[in-house]
Amino acid sequence: MKIMRKRSKRPGLPPGTLVYVGDNKNVKSTITLFDYNSDRINEIEIRNPDELASCLADNAVSWINITGLNDLDLIEKIGEIFEIHPLVLEDVVDTDHRPKFEEYDDYYYSIVKMLTYDDKKKEMNSEQVSFIIGKNYLITFQEIEGDVFNTIRERLRKNKGRVRREDSDYLCYTLMDAIVDNYFYVLETIAEETEQLEDILLKNADASVLQRIHQQKRQLIFMRKSVWPLREILNNIDRLESDLVKSSSKLFFRDVYDHTIQIIDTVENLRDIVTGMLDIYLSTVSNRMNEVMKVLTIIATIFIPLTFLAGIYGMNFQYMPELAWKFGYPMALAVMVSVGIVMLVFFKRKKWF
Amino acid sequence: MKIMRKRSKRPGLPPGTLVYVGDNKNVKSTITLFDYNSDRINEIEIRNPDELASCLADNAVSWINITGLNDLDLIEKIGEIFEIHPLVLEDVVDTDHRPKFEEYDDYYYSIVKMLTYDDKKKEMNSEQVSFIIGKNYLITFQEIEGDVFNTIRERLRKNKGRVRREDSDYLCYTLMDAIVDNYFYVLETIAEETEQLEDILLKNADASVLQRIHQQKRQLIFMRKSVWPLREILNNIDRLESDLVKSSSKLFFRDVYDHTIQIIDTVENLRDIVTGMLDIYLSTVSNRMNEVMKVLTIIATIFIPLTFLAGIYGMNFQYMPELAWKFGYPMALAVMVSVGIVMLVFFKRKKWF
Amino acid sequence: MKIMRKRSKRPGLPPGTLVYVGDNKNVKSTITLFDYNSDRINEIEIRNPDELASCLADNAVSWINITGLNDLDLIEKIGEIFEIHPLVLEDVVDTDHRPKFEEYDDYYYSIVKMLTYDDKKKEMNSEQVSFIIGKNYLITFQEIEGDVFNTIRERLRKNKGRVRREDSDYLCYTLMDAIVDNYFYVLETIAEETEQLEDILLKNADASVLQRIHQQKRQLIFMRKSVWPLREILNNIDRLESDLVKSSSKLFFRDVYDHTIQIIDTVENLRDIVTGMLDIYLSTVSNRMNEVMKVLTIIATIFIPLTFLAGIYGMNFQYMPELAWKFGYPMALAVMVSVGIVMLVFFKRKKWF
Amino acid sequence: MKIMRKRSKRPGLPPGTLVYVGDNKNVKSTITLFDYNSDRINEIEIRNPDELASCLADNAVSWINITGLNDLDLIEKIGEIFEIHPLVLEDVVDTDHRPKFEEYDDYYYSIVKMLTYDDKKKEMNSEQVSFIIGKNYLITFQEIEGDVFNTIRERLRKNKGRVRREDSDYLCYTLMDAIVDNYFYVLETIAEETEQLEDILLKNADASVLQRIHQQKRQLIFMRKSVWPLREILNNIDRLESDLVKSSSKLFFRDVYDHTIQIIDTVENLRDIVTGMLDIYLSTVSNRMNEVMKVLTIIATIFIPLTFLAGIYGMNFQYMPELAWKFGYPMALAVMVSVGIVMLVFFKRKKWF
Amino acid sequence: MKIMRKRSKRPGLPPGTLVYVGDNKNVKSTITLFDYNSDRINEIEIRNPDELASCLADNAVSWINITGLNDLDLIEKIGEIFEIHPLVLEDVVDTDHRPKFEEYDDYYYSIVKMLTYDDKKKEMNSEQVSFIIGKNYLITFQEIEGDVFNTIRERLRKNKGRVRREDSDYLCYTLMDAIVDNYFYVLETIAEETEQLEDILLKNADASVLQRIHQQKRQLIFMRKSVWPLREILNNIDRLESDLVKSSSKLFFRDVYDHTIQIIDTVENLRDIVTGMLDIYLSTVSNRMNEVMKVLTIIATIFIPLTFLAGIYGMNFQYMPELAWKFGYPMALAVMVSVGIVMLVFFKRKKWF
Repeated sequence: MKIMRKRSKRPGLPPGTLVYVGDNKNVKSTITLFDYNSDRINEIEIRNPDELASCLADNAVSWINITGLNDLDLIEKIGEIFEIHPLVLEDVVDTDHRPKFEEYDDYYYSIVKMLTYDDKKKEMNSEQVSFIIGKNYLITFQEIEGDVFNTIRERLRKNKGRVRREDSDYLCYTLMDAIVDNYFYVLETIAEETEQLEDILLKNADASVLQRIHQQKRQLIFMRKSVWPLREILNNIDRLESDLVKSSSKLFFRDVYDHTIQIIDTVENLRDIVTGMLDIYLSTVSNRMNEVMKVLTIIATIFIPLTFLAGIYGMNFQYMPELAWKFGYPMALAVMVSVGIVMLVFFKRKKWF
Repeated sequence: MKIMRKRSKRPGLPPGTLVYVGDNKNVKSTITLFDYNSDRINEIEIRNPDELASCLADNAVSWINITGLNDLDLIEKIGEIFEIHPLVLEDVVDTDHRPKFEEYDDYYYSIVKMLTYDDKKKEMNSEQVSFIIGKNYLITFQEIEGDVFNTIRERLRKNKGRVRREDSDYLCYTLMDAIVDNYFYVLETIAEETEQLEDILLKNADASVLQRIHQQKRQLIFMRKSVWPLREILNNIDRLESDLVKSSSKLFFRDVYDHTIQIIDTVENLRDIVTGMLDIYLSTVSNRMNEVMKVLTIIATIFIPLTFLAGIYGMNFQYMPELAWKFGYPMALAVMVSVGIVMLVFFKRKKWF
Repeated sequence: MKIMRKRSKRPGLPPGTLVYVGDNKNVKSTITLFDYNSDRINEIEIRNPDELASCLADNAVSWINITGLNDLDLIEKIGEIFEIHPLVLEDVVDTDHRPKFEEYDDYYYSIVKMLTYDDKKKEMNSEQVSFIIGKNYLITFQEIEGDVFNTIRERLRKNKGRVRREDSDYLCYTLMDAIVDNYFYVLETIAEETEQLEDILLKNADASVLQRIHQQKRQLIFMRKSVWPLREILNNIDRLESDLVKSSSKLFFRDVYDHTIQIIDTVENLRDIVTGMLDIYLSTVSNRMNEVMKVLTIIATIFIPLTFLAGIYGMNFQYMPELAWKFGYPMALAVMVSVGIVMLVFFKRKKWF
Repeated sequence: MKIMRKRSKRPGLPPGTLVYVGDNKNVKSTITLFDYNSDRINEIEIRNPDELASCLADNAVSWINITGLNDLDLIEKIGEIFEIHPLVLEDVVDTDHRPKFEEYDDYYYSIVKMLTYDDKKKEMNSEQVSFIIGKNYLITFQEIEGDVFNTIRERLRKNKGRVRREDSDYLCYTLMDAIVDNYFYVLETIAEETEQLEDILLKNADASVLQRIHQQKRQLIFMRKSVWPLREILNNIDRLESDLVKSSSKLFFRDVYDHTIQIIDTVENLRDIVTGMLDIYLSTVSNRMNEVMKVLTIIATIFIPLTFLAGIYGMNFQYMPELAWKFGYPMALAVMVSVGIVMLVFFKRKKWF
Repeated sequence: MKIMRKRSKRPGLPPGTLVYVGDNKNVKSTITLFDYNSDRINEIEIRNPDELASCLADNAVSWINITGLNDLDLIEKIGEIFEIHPLVLEDVVDTDHRPKFEEYDDYYYSIVKMLTYDDKKKEMNSEQVSFIIGKNYLITFQEIEGDVFNTIRERLRKNKGRVRREDSDYLCYTLMDAIVDNYFYVLETIAEETEQLEDILLKNADASVLQRIHQQKRQLIFMRKSVWPLREILNNIDRLESDLVKSSSKLFFRDVYDHTIQIIDTVENLRDIVTGMLDIYLSTVSNRMNEVMKVLTIIATIFIPLTFLAGIYGMNFQYMPELAWKFGYPMALAVMVSVGIVMLVFFKRKKWF
């Protein structure tokens, strides 16, 4: 969960220059094609991008999913076939891009972040998914192979729900819906971690809690950054006046919008709670120091005067009448005990223990 | 008052898949029907949802209240009869949903949160209430049986006020008004708790206060999350151009809007006050530590030098002229007393006590 | 200055049910009528509200002022005569209502808060004033008798300024103007208290300052809550297209708007300053603890090693050559003095005193 | 730099009642008239306001500058001649008014704050300047005589730039521009003070720094309050559709607008920086206390156990074998030195010094 | 990275008075002209600005780049040739100006900040770049010679990409794009520094970290100030209806807009993270002080009572029975050891070590 991915693009390169920005440089690019209508479905692994040209012609819906963004030639080739603007292709491989939605003449382009939570490292990972929504086709670009879309693939194969009966806009909705549903999972993990932290905080908070709170904060910042622009994207889709996105589909996109708002709300509330936890941690530390100070002060203020008294009768003056008294020693002890008791009463009244 | 309810829905399920999200999995679903106009009223417990079909036909207003959201078949059946969109039914049972208002062709759909305060656990509970407002009918879905609507039922039975003379929109208003009026009760309890905390804070704040302040903060975050979207809902109702909500009813919804604004205002002010209380708590702790330090310092700085003086004359050097002096001992004591007095004067002038 | 007034209304009561929410339950309701035009003025105490019906008929302006909101029958009666909507009457007696402005067919309804500062208790009090502005009449409802409107009454009686020549809208302006002018007085008192607190803070801040800062904060929150909605109210008046408020009067309302903005500005600035004062208080406490710690450390670190040295030569070993030296004692003293001086130099260089 | 100026106006006075609110009650009101066109210029000190009536008639531009706002009769007289609305005159002398811009039928009225920085007291002073921009004339009201407008007077006398060739709107621009340019000077002084404070903070911060930070904060609050409304004023001027402000002049006002935005930006950034400085100050104090604590702890934890050891062999038991050992004393010393070294190593490893 | 640059302009100077505000007073002004179309390109160093007049005539695109803003006569001369408004020229040399975009009749004027990061001083530098976009020409003004535009110059010379085929608006885009791409580099350096600081914070934070955090904060404030207005500039360009900026170019400007939003997002997130780091630093300091206090308290509370016990038997009373006991000494030691163990158990149970 780096703050920024390293961009290797030099400033001043011509627009449309493809530079892959990301950590998955070794992922081989593969193309999978789902070609379907309500009657039939073909699932093909494409080797040569030129085969895709036929997708434009037929009446069926084509879902072209590209996994792995290293093969820039492949991506340029696809761009040529579907007549995609070079700036779009540049953004497809610039995987640190902000989520967005753009209208072009024959297609829409949208970037969305897919979030996953690495339970081992306890950190969130983000993968960029690009959607190109055209007439009869949907192209999706993923950095690595994930399993969030698998349920959709299953629904397509088994013709569950209405997805096979609908157009590419509805397919786009189901994919975005799956991504947003997955946000809930990630958020739940974070919320659980927050509740655990709250418990620890009230029981025995040590310095490691602080780090975990900071980690939580960063994750929420990261999540907000990924989810917040989705709001605008789905708003844009809702306002479209176009054949590509039918008004019956808009209802479904509005549902995703609702979920997005709910996620943003929860992220904001979690941020408030986590910030509150920091205050509690800080004052727990203060309280504990107070406790330590009290112990020190009680012990020291009782025994320091007593030690002084003992010190007096440890002096070697030749003429110290008390030393010769028969009950000098018990009297001295009595005085010491009294001083001690007075001190204890004083602290008791100050409610120090 | 969990931050998020556990969603058991897997990402990628087709839209309209009903999955009940909530803690009340054992509540049996029951349907109550109030069928009324200004002349007559029937209150019937419905066993078979098919009986509801007749409600659509007649001229009277039908209030169908479903309590318990576990029986998904029942809910789907009702959805069929009243031709409700599957996404609406999905939201009805997704009881962690954000409050919202949606227009459909023949009906409106609204989600509102009913809040109750558990005096024993000192925490707020939230229940989701869904409203489907149609021509001549109002369907409400509740998670558990509550008593907030009982007054309305009484008014219906006894024909108090104008509710029996009005349409389903007015009935919807009275129910929402009851929910919002109930917010005031919950808020009053929180405000009282806040004022109690303020008193405790100024008298004898211990570490438990901190936890209660944190608890208050979370409750206010929770309340804001539930109430804030209501503002938008009521705004939407006010802007409707439709037969389903008459303009004479809008005046009443505007009144609920006013109350909502007032609740939001108070929640915000309480948040400001509670945040201020944390600062006070922190500086109270600081002040106390200061007090402890002063006691330690006064005792230690008075007696440490004196003990040193006593230590000097406790040394066993053979040639220490003072030890042989006749008035060596009283002189030593005098010096010690003087040093002590000088110290006390010093602290007095520093205003340490 | 309670956070919320206790509402005794049960949720679910029919709209228009009058329930007086307030602390002044013993104030007897009285009606005063000023009936005037530029030629004549009549000031009458009304016993029977039916007498008011004549006000609607004549051409003169009628200012009907009701003080004390306990007599709900009286208020309902007035509502009947002037054909006021039941929701308006409900808000008139719900004296914890948020300031607002509402248009009805024949009249406008506005709620404004009158603020006074109780110098003894050092707290702000708020009274709700309702305005019903109709053709030729203005009805005002007050909780208790105040003196803010007395100047206006005097101006009416003595025909000062243009108020007698103008309509009910101008009368409404003069009353609102008097209320807003009074805010300045309250704000000045708070600003003075703030400046006093600043002085105290820099001289000798003790724990009581903290409480006063918190009190100031709450008062500013309270003031903002009362004044902020006025902004919107006056904006609404400015945008009215109506005969009831003439455009020549709008100029005057705009002037009140200006003053409101100025008050809000000052409240916000005071909040910033008061928040800053808390930071100063906290660091003053820290600074002082630092001072205390330094004194303790200086005394302790000088005398603890010296006491140790004295302790060494207080040991009773039979073979301790130094004890038998002729100059053992002065040498020991010399070593002690040297150690002390070294310590002092060390602290001096650390700039601890 | 008081938070509020004392208003002596009683609430409820009729609108248009002139009450001078300000500290400069002894400044004698003087009127200076610049009457010019591109050919000629007359600079006259006016004794009798009636002489001003001629300004309205002729074709030349008249700049009437009134300094000193005590002579309320004079101001009312001017108001009569130029037919100024009484509310405007009220605002002219209400010198604690918020900057604003108002359109009237024949003239515009604007209030702007002139800021100066008193280097000796290290505080900002604010003076209210009112502009009445009419056809062929510009009336300006100042509280005291300043030197910000002197450059403009010089430019008028010497016919520098285009000001003599232009109308009263351009004159108004040059005056406002001079005021805004002067803000930069004041802001530079504050920025320098801030940078000085930063230096001090990193070198040797004492309690006085805290006060200076608080002072800086208040000055920035004060400045923001004065400059922020200017933004709106200049925006209003830009949107005017009128003969009084020509579109060629608007370009110049837009330039002033740019400067205003820049000042607001810098004020906000300075506020952020100053707030950050407070955090640094607080943690510097914490750090120092930490340092003090470490010294105390090192000295005390080394010598307290040693003193205990010495104390043991200072006991007077008759049977203490070690006391009779030949090497008892050196062994005791050796033990002590070892304990001390162990302690030092412990602290070294804890990186305490 | 000064908060403000010193302005030497006196308030009240006529508009259009050129005053160079900047640190690079010794940079000699040079003019470079790129005159190109898709067929040919001329790169000429211009000595005499009059030679530029021919640029207006021909059909090729002219990029006139002026480096060094000291030669005010030169700039005025260029202004004359291209009929630039004096206010624009004033802003060109006022190099502390806020980024902005202004429409004039025949050209657009835009100010953008070029940021560079000085790795040695670890601080950001800002240079003001002005763009005057006219029909067939683009004039750019730079304070010093930089290398951000060199890639563009190379692309022009080698006819890479489409820049030679396009108009001055596209050239302007490539230059702005290069500037914005460079922001990413600067931001990456800051993000890396932030991540380094995070590491240090969790390992061994000392006082110097605080200064670096403050420095980071200031740099982010500085960056935000420079980048934020770009958002508005690019928005303005997108809304232009003009021949000077073609709609095909707008697509490219929209891409720069996207990058700007992304930079602003990252700056805001970094600010949140850096603010969080300060909290961590503060509580680390608190934690450490707590640690120090515990060590002191453990040592002191164990040995102070023991020393007191030793002190008792060091008293010289003649009648102290224990002193004569055979096992008095070992018993005393045993008591001391027991007390010590009790103390250690107490601290263990308090989890102090």
